[in-house]
Amino acid sequence: MAGSTFGKLFRITTWGESHGKGIGVVVDGVPSGLPLEEADIQAYLDRRKPGQSKYTTARKEADKVQILSGIFEGKTTGTPVSMMVSNTDQHSKDYSALAGLYRPGHADFSFDQKYGFRDYRGGGRSSGRETIGRVAGGALAAMVLKKLGITFTTYTKSIGPVCSSEENFDPAFIMENDLYMADRDAYEKASAYLDQCRQEKDSSGGIAECRIYGVPAGLGDPVFDKLDAELAKAIFSIGAVKGFEIGDGFEASRKKGSQNNDPFVPAGSTIATKTNHCGGILGGISSGGPIVFRAAFKPTPSIARPQQTVAQDGNPTEIEIKGRHDPIIVPRAIVVVECMAAVVLLNALMENMPARMDHIEKFYF
Amino acid sequence: MAGSTFGKLFRITTWGESHGKGIGVVVDGVPSGLPLEEADIQAYLDRRKPGQSKYTTARKEADKVQILSGIFEGKTTGTPVSMMVSNTDQHSKDYSALAGLYRPGHADFSFDQKYGFRDYRGGGRSSGRETIGRVAGGALAAMVLKKLGITFTTYTKSIGPVCSSEENFDPAFIMENDLYMADRDAYEKASAYLDQCRQEKDSSGGIAECRIYGVPAGLGDPVFDKLDAELAKAIFSIGAVKGFEIGDGFEASRKKGSQNNDPFVPAGSTIATKTNHCGGILGGISSGGPIVFRAAFKPTPSIARPQQTVAQDGNPTEIEIKGRHDPIIVPRAIVVVECMAAVVLLNALMENMPARMDHIEKFYF
Amino acid sequence: MAGSTFGKLFRITTWGESHGKGIGVVVDGVPSGLPLEEADIQAYLDRRKPGQSKYTTARKEADKVQILSGIFEGKTTGTPVSMMVSNTDQHSKDYSALAGLYRPGHADFSFDQKYGFRDYRGGGRSSGRETIGRVAGGALAAMVLKKLGITFTTYTKSIGPVCSSEENFDPAFIMENDLYMADRDAYEKASAYLDQCRQEKDSSGGIAECRIYGVPAGLGDPVFDKLDAELAKAIFSIGAVKGFEIGDGFEASRKKGSQNNDPFVPAGSTIATKTNHCGGILGGISSGGPIVFRAAFKPTPSIARPQQTVAQDGNPTEIEIKGRHDPIIVPRAIVVVECMAAVVLLNALMENMPARMDHIEKFYF
Amino acid sequence: MAGSTFGKLFRITTWGESHGKGIGVVVDGVPSGLPLEEADIQAYLDRRKPGQSKYTTARKEADKVQILSGIFEGKTTGTPVSMMVSNTDQHSKDYSALAGLYRPGHADFSFDQKYGFRDYRGGGRSSGRETIGRVAGGALAAMVLKKLGITFTTYTKSIGPVCSSEENFDPAFIMENDLYMADRDAYEKASAYLDQCRQEKDSSGGIAECRIYGVPAGLGDPVFDKLDAELAKAIFSIGAVKGFEIGDGFEASRKKGSQNNDPFVPAGSTIATKTNHCGGILGGISSGGPIVFRAAFKPTPSIARPQQTVAQDGNPTEIEIKGRHDPIIVPRAIVVVECMAAVVLLNALMENMPARMDHIEKFYF
Repeated sequence: MAGSTFGKLFRITTWGESHGKGIGVVVDGVPSGLPLEEADIQAYLDRRKPGQSKYTTARKEADKVQILSGIFEGKTTGTPVSMMVSNTDQHSKDYSALAGLYRPGHADFSFDQKYGFRDYRGGGRSSGRETIGRVAGGALAAMVLKKLGITFTTYTKSIGPVCSSEENFDPAFIMENDLYMADRDAYEKASAYLDQCRQEKDSSGGIAECRIYGVPAGLGDPVFDKLDAELAKAIFSIGAVKGFEIGDGFEASRKKGSQNNDPFVPAGSTIATKTNHCGGILGGISSGGPIVFRAAFKPTPSIARPQQTVAQDGNPTEIEIKGRHDPIIVPRAIVVVECMAAVVLLNALMENMPARMDHIEKFYF
Repeated sequence: MAGSTFGKLFRITTWGESHGKGIGVVVDGVPSGLPLEEADIQAYLDRRKPGQSKYTTARKEADKVQILSGIFEGKTTGTPVSMMVSNTDQHSKDYSALAGLYRPGHADFSFDQKYGFRDYRGGGRSSGRETIGRVAGGALAAMVLKKLGITFTTYTKSIGPVCSSEENFDPAFIMENDLYMADRDAYEKASAYLDQCRQEKDSSGGIAECRIYGVPAGLGDPVFDKLDAELAKAIFSIGAVKGFEIGDGFEASRKKGSQNNDPFVPAGSTIATKTNHCGGILGGISSGGPIVFRAAFKPTPSIARPQQTVAQDGNPTEIEIKGRHDPIIVPRAIVVVECMAAVVLLNALMENMPARMDHIEKFYF
Repeated sequence: MAGSTFGKLFRITTWGESHGKGIGVVVDGVPSGLPLEEADIQAYLDRRKPGQSKYTTARKEADKVQILSGIFEGKTTGTPVSMMVSNTDQHSKDYSALAGLYRPGHADFSFDQKYGFRDYRGGGRSSGRETIGRVAGGALAAMVLKKLGITFTTYTKSIGPVCSSEENFDPAFIMENDLYMADRDAYEKASAYLDQCRQEKDSSGGIAECRIYGVPAGLGDPVFDKLDAELAKAIFSIGAVKGFEIGDGFEASRKKGSQNNDPFVPAGSTIATKTNHCGGILGGISSGGPIVFRAAFKPTPSIARPQQTVAQDGNPTEIEIKGRHDPIIVPRAIVVVECMAAVVLLNALMENMPARMDHIEKFYF
Repeated sequence: MAGSTFGKLFRITTWGESHGKGIGVVVDGVPSGLPLEEADIQAYLDRRKPGQSKYTTARKEADKVQILSGIFEGKTTGTPVSMMVSNTDQHSKDYSALAGLYRPGHADFSFDQKYGFRDYRGGGRSSGRETIGRVAGGALAAMVLKKLGITFTTYTKSIGPVCSSEENFDPAFIMENDLYMADRDAYEKASAYLDQCRQEKDSSGGIAECRIYGVPAGLGDPVFDKLDAELAKAIFSIGAVKGFEIGDGFEASRKKGSQNNDPFVPAGSTIATKTNHCGGILGGISSGGPIVFRAAFKPTPSIARPQQTVAQDGNPTEIEIKGRHDPIIVPRAIVVVECMAAVVLLNALMENMPARMDHIEKFYF
């Protein structure tokens, strides 16, 4: 119930379905005085726009954002920023054949069990289009963070069995390829792999990695609201995510303490860790190093091959999913991952400000 | 700030440090009418008690729970259940040598950055003893769930490089061995591996797996408060967790859609999935199958070997951590994982009750 | 920060300014299966629409609501219902003269202090138009409650010194007069009083009363989230409210216990109170009797008379507020009061469902 | 459900019943570095301790507070401060006669309806002793505020028909009399009135007033989380409160705009209001003037006279309430009102810190 709101001091509330009038977000808690225009948000939305490459759905949506409130004379006022993207290129009829069938790997059945019925057109609220609200809202958070020197490098780490190597890591390449990978060699292999998937009427999973630079030490909370726990929730709330890890993640479970601990070393006027196995967070609180996390995405569940399933009436049957579907989710999800992480970071920053008496006294006077 | 509370309708608030007067929890939102006595909670706490095997700290704590409120004539009244465990076997002096040093892999430095100073005795609030409150509170949730037919099987899946196999999975064995493993062969190998770690003054990471049976389809929420997102946050909030995955998890990222989708099949009067790659959750909502997730724990950061570090004054130095430390965190964390999952599940159940008009109307009249 | 969201399981998030593109609300947690069309919401909005009588602003707004999401085939799906009303009849120029002046009784100065600057056109977010989102969202709550037999009678109890009498209370009259009063005699006197205020370029305060029928005993919470505390917050969050009381309210402070206690009496198969001094709530939990509360509204601060004030540059000056302003706030606020109360009641109902083990067990199976 | 927690960044969670083992509070979000010892909290608790005058219950409780966590070397660490007061002087037997009867004016019946049964000893969780947790937690908030120059004057404004006059207002007298009144004449009359009430085996209502000095302009939020709305909820959550008003309150509803608006005037380097009809809050945000509010308390419902009621079995009967009860609630509630207001103010202060880009940028660097 009421699960469409995320964040405490900086808060996004999203709405909208795949085949309704549009998709939107209300962003509350935006600090006043931030210069903001629609083009700023559009730049982020364009990174998840469909129809940009052969690996994304052929659905053509301009996905033009409209800012409906919260701005005066080019700056945020501190009141809610409401934004909306209209749905334009809807092929609802594509879905009428699916109305009575449960698509494997989709939320059709679980929605029906929860709500008693569902909007079967394009997944309704469980559609990937739901992420438009996240991106529009998170873009705002990222803009605030950028002003404070906190920046993001987010990219497609692996596609199916094809994994980027750290040696080939080239951040400049990320925005130059339609898979948002950071390794030219891996990109070639991944392209070939996806072509093959498509030929087989199949799809592929993959992994996204996000690196956050410039985060000061001391953000986060030591118990339930650990910074990594908040990131875990934020990233796991993105559809199709099946795994989340920070720093060395699952690999750390196979290591010894002497291999996994990051020694502390002097670093100018402060202290840093020599290595970053911890991924920038210790005890739920940022360590001052880059925050590094990965999210595992399952393969796109909509595939054109025949699949075994059951109709709503309980009879077993076969399903073939037509329509326009990406063979892989990760590339378009990259900006979603970045934007959700930005919401978490900005929240942590805002909540952390009054953590100490000396901070409060300094601010107050 | 204020990050010691977890849950919305069923809510736990924990307090206490390793070397303070005690550790406790306030459990709010407990349904009235649940038979409850201290022994019920104690059974859960005993599963995380130190001093029970050679693989756990030699610190001897009775960890006897006291229920301070919320019960009348043997049943919960619906008002907060406050519980407390006193700290008794504290060796605070063990830590005075560490007061000015930042222990690698620990939260000492990040705490100092956030709060300006810290209780350096035994990690203070970042100590593993903090989980006592989680277990006492989650035990209450698990008891309610048990009455509704929802049960948990939680065990140590792997220790360092030693991983259990599904073929040898024997749930009856879990409570019979001090590592809470479910595979006799793996247990032997893991024991040997831990003995070696200890001899090397080192420690090991590992993986916990939790399987939840009896969860009805339809629990959870489709957007930010997905059932798996809530689990991710809950589990990631446990100290030392570096990774979380559900169903096939990271493995799903390497698969194709045709391998990962779970076909639907008729199942008596309802519908089920033939396989369970999804781990019992689709689109953030339970599918009716068992919920299966794993958590990766890093190796215990406190190791007796000399490690490179920096003192609070900024000077590089070496540290050797004496004291009583487990060579592996996972076995004692098993019950913590289970209890945090129970809090999430009970919350989901309680929040889901009014999701449909027909449910409300039926309840109301 | 982030203060535009109200409610826990049933939750409204509002956005929009007086002179922006529009005003809207996202309603989350709506039970699925509720028949809903725009006309249902419009009926509530029409009760607060301007331009309907000589006592309301001449600003002419159609205030036509658009439902943007959350409905499929005429019924709520359980996902967020986003609604929007476009602003059409804006006279922003009326306000440019006020840009540099602090209007007495308004939030201009306090906004500037909090945010550093403000949207000075028509009060921006502090405008009465902000209540459009409350009404659209609360209408949805009221519709659910109506299906469960919970109904509202809300009316203008007093205007300036003119107070309705209980003897003349005629609920049928409420919707027949432009002041939403329930007493014909008082209505005549109040009309004359308001005419006089207007001639004096002045305005009047007043009191709204709300009676809620059909609320079952047992809703609410005993400590911080008392049902009356939630109502107090909800009603006090409406602009211009300066007082709130329940049952005998302030009068109870002047009485003795023997006069104020409500004796219990048998009532069919249940128990009721003979009198209702408590206003339907005891110990924060509904008693089964009608819930009765009152809200005191201050006079409209925008008056045409010259007033002493200070310009933003700190210089004392005089201000005369032109433009279109109601001489009294209460009549148009009646539906706002009702809608905010509906949100509180529906929340309480939804949260209370899992309060008892026997309720949970009955629902679950 | 789960209604025992109050506050967002600074948060109190209370627990305990009248006749259980004790009463307590967990305070989360306390800024680190505040010097704190038990005596600081005890000073506040002593203001609500029973047995101090002829106007309070003869129950003798030392009400000695114990701090169980969150302090290291005499200062708060930023982690939860858990505090507890043991119940010692319980006369549970006094209540066994009442087990099957519904006391008029009490929450017995509404508790039974909500929870199915209740702890009938001394009201259980609905006892006035529940406020111990509020006072201990709020005292901590008040201590932080005091360091920032924000102070409280809270007193008994009226008792039954006896009301203090503004002319006789003498804040120094408040702590010198057992009714916490600020007017010597009114005190004499109120004492006589209470003696009479007691002779008649009756009780009296009254009004508390709280004035908060030193609050900077710009705290609070413009929509649902208005500063006055938060105060309204906080104060209305105190048992026996039936009305809340700010500034001129209900009196404002009878006034004209020209009488109620507060003209702005230059005030040194800033701006102030000439009068304070608004009570220090405009549009939900502090205006810079003193915050002034009043709370109406009903008469103590426990009176020794025979009263008409119904037994749990549905049979009408008569009840005479023995035991130890105050003839008036207000004097002992004064400190509760102050402490709840302190929690609201500290929250507002902490949440407001990151409201503006320039604040964030200044803090961050």
